[in-house]
Formats: sequence, C-alpha cells, structure tokens
Amino acid sequence: MKLDLARELSQVSSTKIVLCVLDGLGGLARSSSGKTELEEAHTPNLDQLAGESEIGSTIPVGIGITPGSGPGHLALFGYDPLEFDIGRGVLEATGIEFQLGPNDVAARGNFCTLDSNGEIIDRRAGRIESNRSKQIVELLRSVEIEGVDLYVEPVREHRFVLVLKGEGLGEYVSTTDPQIEGAKPIPAEGTDPASKKTAEYVNTFVAAANDLLAESGEKQANGLVLRGFAKVPLLPQLDDIWKLRCAALAVYPMYRGLASLAGMETLACPGGMAEQLAVARDRWDDFDYFFIHYKKTDAAGEDGDFEAKVQSLEEFDKSVPAIRELGADVLMIAGDHSTPAVLAGHSWHPVPFLLNSAHTSGKVGFSEDSCRLGALGTFSATEVLPLAMAHAGKLQKYGA
Amino acid sequence: MKLDLARELSQVSSTKIVLCVLDGLGGLARSSSGKTELEEAHTPNLDQLAGESEIGSTIPVGIGITPGSGPGHLALFGYDPLEFDIGRGVLEATGIEFQLGPNDVAARGNFCTLDSNGEIIDRRAGRIESNRSKQIVELLRSVEIEGVDLYVEPVREHRFVLVLKGEGLGEYVSTTDPQIEGAKPIPAEGTDPASKKTAEYVNTFVAAANDLLAESGEKQANGLVLRGFAKVPLLPQLDDIWKLRCAALAVYPMYRGLASLAGMETLACPGGMAEQLAVARDRWDDFDYFFIHYKKTDAAGEDGDFEAKVQSLEEFDKSVPAIRELGADVLMIAGDHSTPAVLAGHSWHPVPFLLNSAHTSGKVGFSEDSCRLGALGTFSATEVLPLAMAHAGKLQKYGA
Repeated sequence: MKLDLARELSQVSSTKIVLCVLDGLGGLARSSSGKTELEEAHTPNLDQLAGESEIGSTIPVGIGITPGSGPGHLALFGYDPLEFDIGRGVLEATGIEFQLGPNDVAARGNFCTLDSNGEIIDRRAGRIESNRSKQIVELLRSVEIEGVDLYVEPVREHRFVLVLKGEGLGEYVSTTDPQIEGAKPIPAEGTDPASKKTAEYVNTFVAAANDLLAESGEKQANGLVLRGFAKVPLLPQLDDIWKLRCAALAVYPMYRGLASLAGMETLACPGGMAEQLAVARDRWDDFDYFFIHYKKTDAAGEDGDFEAKVQSLEEFDKSVPAIRELGADVLMIAGDHSTPAVLAGHSWHPVPFLLNSAHTSGKVGFSEDSCRLGALGTFSATEVLPLAMAHAGKLQKYGA
Repeated sequence: MKLDLARELSQVSSTKIVLCVLDGLGGLARSSSGKTELEEAHTPNLDQLAGESEIGSTIPVGIGITPGSGPGHLALFGYDPLEFDIGRGVLEATGIEFQLGPNDVAARGNFCTLDSNGEIIDRRAGRIESNRSKQIVELLRSVEIEGVDLYVEPVREHRFVLVLKGEGLGEYVSTTDPQIEGAKPIPAEGTDPASKKTAEYVNTFVAAANDLLAESGEKQANGLVLRGFAKVPLLPQLDDIWKLRCAALAVYPMYRGLASLAGMETLACPGGMAEQLAVARDRWDDFDYFFIHYKKTDAAGEDGDFEAKVQSLEEFDKSVPAIRELGADVLMIAGDHSTPAVLAGHSWHPVPFLLNSAHTSGKVGFSEDSCRLGALGTFSATEVLPLAMAHAGKLQKYGA
C-alpha cells in the first residue's frame, strides 16, 4: 500500500498488533534429512498457532533479491525497501543512540585480524569481547584529521561506528571491506566531489589507525574495515502514517536503531525474550504495536550451523504461549529474510509468515512448504503491515 | 495490464464475454459450522461449473484494503482503482442518469432520523419508501442559494443526490456524515478556496433543508447527511481500450452509473436476474461483453445475516444454467469484494473467482478454499479483464 493512501485510510482503535521477527527465519532442506530447519525443529506451539492463523510466504524485497537486515525489516514495517535505503552506518550509529546530524556521514566498522602481508585472516577478529573492543576504540579516538571531526564509538564485539562530522561531506563512499578472507582491505573511493573528499579523510583515518594498532602490539584486532557509509535518511514516521504508537523490543543495536528511525520507541530489554515479553506486558497500554526481535535464528544460520538453528527455533517455540498470553488482537510471526544454514548466509528465498486474529483459520504446521500453500500465498513483505492493520480494524474502507 | 498496452493488443472478434458480479461474494466461516457462506450453500450448478473452469481468488484493490463497491467494480473492469477514483456522488448521479457537467459537484445524500438534540438515531431513516423520499426531495427543491444552482434528485429509499452547478466549485469537501449513530451531522469543510466556497453552499443548503423538514412536521426523515462530494472523472472508455461493445445489466443505480462511466451501455432491466438474462438474450448480437450485477449477496452480508447470504447464493445458483445457456465464450463469476456475514460489512479478503471457456478445467467446488488452491492462485482483480480477453481470443501476441 502506498504511504499516502495508508495515511488517508488508517484510523485509531483500541486493538493491539504484535510483530515477532525471527531474524533469518526461512531455511532450506539439508540433504541428510530432506527437511528444512523449521521442519526438523519440534515446534508444537508454532504448529498449533499456524492451525489457527492465515499463513503464507513473504518476499522481502523482490524475487531473487537477498536482503540485508535493514531492507528486510523496513519491508515488514511497511516501507518499500527499494525506495527507502538506509545505510548500515546510520543503522549502527542510531542503534547506539548516537545523535547523527543531517550532514554527518556514518560507517560501520569491523575490527579484523591481518597477517604479516596485511591480508585479512579473520573478518571478525575472533569476535573479540566488547570490553576489549572498547579499549581499542579508545585508542583510535586519538586520531585527528584537519577539516573534519571524527567520532569512533564501540558497538558490540568486533563492531564499531565511525562518524565524520564536518562541512561538505558525501555519503557515496565505497567500502574498504573486501568481504573475503585472504585479501587486503581496499582504499575507500568517492563518486562525487564531496564523497571523494570524504573518502580521503577515511583513508587517512585508516592509515593512522593501523599505525596505532601496530604500535600497541595488538595481535587479534590489528586491522579494520569500514562499510555502509551513509547519511541519515528521512523516513515517514509510523505514528504519522498508520496512527500507531509503536514500541520496539530488540536486544541488538541495529534493530533498535532501525525501529527508532521508523518512529518506534525503543524500550530497554537487554536480557532477551523473557525480558522483552515482560516489558511488553508492562507497557501494554502505552502502545498499539509491538515489534519483538529474535536474533538467534539468523546467527545460527549465518554460522552454517543447522542444528543450532533448529535449536533456536525450538527455543523460540517455547516462548509462543507467553507471546499469545499478551492478548494481541493481531499476532504475526515473520522473518526479515531467510538465512538457510546450508547457505551460511542471508538468501532470497520467501519467508514463512503467519498472522493470527479473531477471524483467521489455517492449516496445520508452520514450515516453508505449508506456508507456500497457505491462504495468503506468496506476497510482498511490504503488505504485512496493511494486512495487520486490516485485521486490527484500523483501516477504513477505500472508496464508496 | 497497462491500458496503453491493452489498447495496442486488443482486437475485435465475434466471441462473447459475460461477467457476473455477485456483490460482496467472498465470506468467512462462522464458528458454529466452521464453514463459509459459499461452503454452507447448496450450489450444485456453481460447483459443477467450477469443475469445468479455472478458479482463483482476486484482490480487488490491494492486500488489507477493504474496497467500496466503486473501486471493486472498477478493478473488475480493468482499471487500477488507485489511479481512477470515482466519488460516490458522481456514481449516484450517473446511476439516475443525471447529466453531470465537468464543473458540477455531486454528493450522495441520505435522509436520517434525528432526535430532539439533533443526534442521529437512524442513519437510513428506517429505509423510508422511495415514494415518500420523492416527496421530501420535492420539498427540498425549494431551497435557493445565490451564486449556485442546486439540484436535489431522489435515488431509492432514503438516498438522494445533491448536485451543485456553478462557477468555481471544488470537490474537496468533507462529509457531513459522522458515520455513527448518536452523533450530530457535522458541517462540511473545504480544503482549497473553491472547495471552501462549495462547503459554505453545502452548509447553507443543509440548514435550509433542516428548517423545511422541521416545518413540514416530518418525523422519520427529519435530517440529512451528505458525502462523496466529487466531480465527474475522465475514465478511458472500454470500447476504445479493449474494442468491446459493452452492456450493463444492473438493477441498482450505482452499478449502472459506474458501468456508464466506463463506457458501457446500460440496459433497462428493473426486474432482477430473470429479466437481466432475458435482456441479454435479446441484445446478444449487439454487444461483445455483458456485465450482470447481482446485489443480494452483499445486502445479506451487510446485514450480518449468514442464512440470508447462503440463500442468496443458492438463489443465484439456480440462475447458473440460464446464464450458461446464453452461450458466452468466456463466462466469469466474480465478486467486487468480500462481505462476510460474520463481519456485517465489506472486508479486505480475496474474492472467489471463476472463469469458464472452451480451454478451462478446474477442481470441483466453488468456495474460498477451493479458489485459493485453484490454478489461477490469488491475483489482482485488475487482471480479470485481460484474462477474459485472452480466453476470448481478443488479445494479440505481444512482440514477435
């Protein structure tokens, strides 16, 4: 649904919508069993819920398009991810509550391990502890470059944010991350004059940082890569368009940041699902829409660990009764994209989707196959929010 | 299909297309039986026809969007209802064959019953008889306002049309209908200068009309509300785009009006289905496309009367053999939207659809479930006409 039309048709009501996003939910069959992660997992609660719900498959961005987490979530929040493009750097900065100005350029940084030739041998520097990472970030803060203010901020484990503040900066700067091990970090390049200048600052920063890391004797996080250079975008806000007061219950900064850009209030719940649900219960009357993010499915899929992904699904399944007890009028179980363990990464495959309301009934079983044959068919993830709005009685009739 | 492409590919042929629209066809299961209206109804003729047809589900406007009858029909006629928006006032005026000029603004009026505080206690004035309504309309015709010509025209039961003719009128005028009982009619407001001026005329008319109704001692239809202010839109005509001579066989004015705006010839058939089919037989050689409208399904659904909707489907089913005897090359059974009796109103749910031609075969049974699993799947209602054109041999190949 176009956002202008959504703004026109949406109406306030007392109904509550809950969206649970299982990050990287969709999977693929492994050859040993011929079954997907969802099919191997013992998920009696999800299966029962599916039998009382409309099920289908969502296409996050487009057929064949493998989405990052940003576009995958934007679609579920009702934005066309091809129209609203949010750089990874902005996501990370917003997630740690760094206040980006309209002219700032932010990038996501990863510490990595370089060998003696300067080639990357571990793209995540062994996922060093957050505390270590903080100390290294402190070291890099001593880098100064004339003409621009630099901010280096720790995120979590090997991840940090670099923000450039100054006049005439550009966001069209290429990544320094070769994305594979065995290659050297690559110099940043800009496309327009402002971005070329910004790329120069970035390369100067990287050189100075490498010198500092070498001097410090750091062995594990002795290099860094930067990607996702971006300025903050102007997203139409969910409360303005859909007249929904939205709360985000997410542990990881990036998802909190994304929700915040869309106009959600991000509630603190660092402890995971039990705490996320406790906070939702506490604040039930204050919001119309709750976004609950579950990360483990994606992490297991990215690691190529089929068993771990099965376990993460079984673990989530145990939370389903408590989620249902929240008493939402519309409850959705969705994924921002597929992360099949057999691919050890995000993929383009449609993602199982389930919507439960007073007026739904479904087929038994929540899996890739059952969802494909479900009543909702295969549809764009951008239609998830309008569908929920309809079930929640929050959309007026279109036309006479 | 884009209309430009349709114009390019369409060709004249001797084949005949019949589209039967069962208004508000789609339903939902009621809890006592677990079955929808179509599943409970005994419809042996539809079921048999489905077994010889392609079946599927149509989405009238978009996922989650509950369509009014206007957009629902426009889509089945091949127009994107989000691109072509027809105000209710224009529909009603055209339906009673009132010739609207390009600068006129038309609104749909309802007589209502007000209590002594001026609050609405019956939004339809007890659906007063058309003859009574006519007399009241006659009374309101005495209202005169300087600067604008007013036309008040009876439609049917409690419904009438108000047309404003004059210079510099605007159509962006808000409804005076609070849409609920227990509230007072609200003053009209305009957004731009021309519409502000028009809103003033409207409010002056309403005040004068209320005075006349009070003086007359009228108790039942002692108030009125106006909505759907609109100017006549310019719809590309069906004969120009699709090279189809189209006939509309509809009893209710609004559907006749809509068909007429699309370029159909509206044939008189006030007596219902038997007469609609008799007229179709009579005029079979004069047209390529026949739109046959059946209203009872929607009326029963709107009343929340599950049994009545089941009966209306069974009644339609009895007409199916006569419809088939017309001998159309392409016969479609469709709905403009769903009106589930359990919701007592229009809804966003996909609508069962059936297309029969010499080249079709299907599954047994015509229901929400069988259609969802049908060969056509779930698709946009705007694709119904191109599909029919293809089956009728009226669309040329695209490209070499």
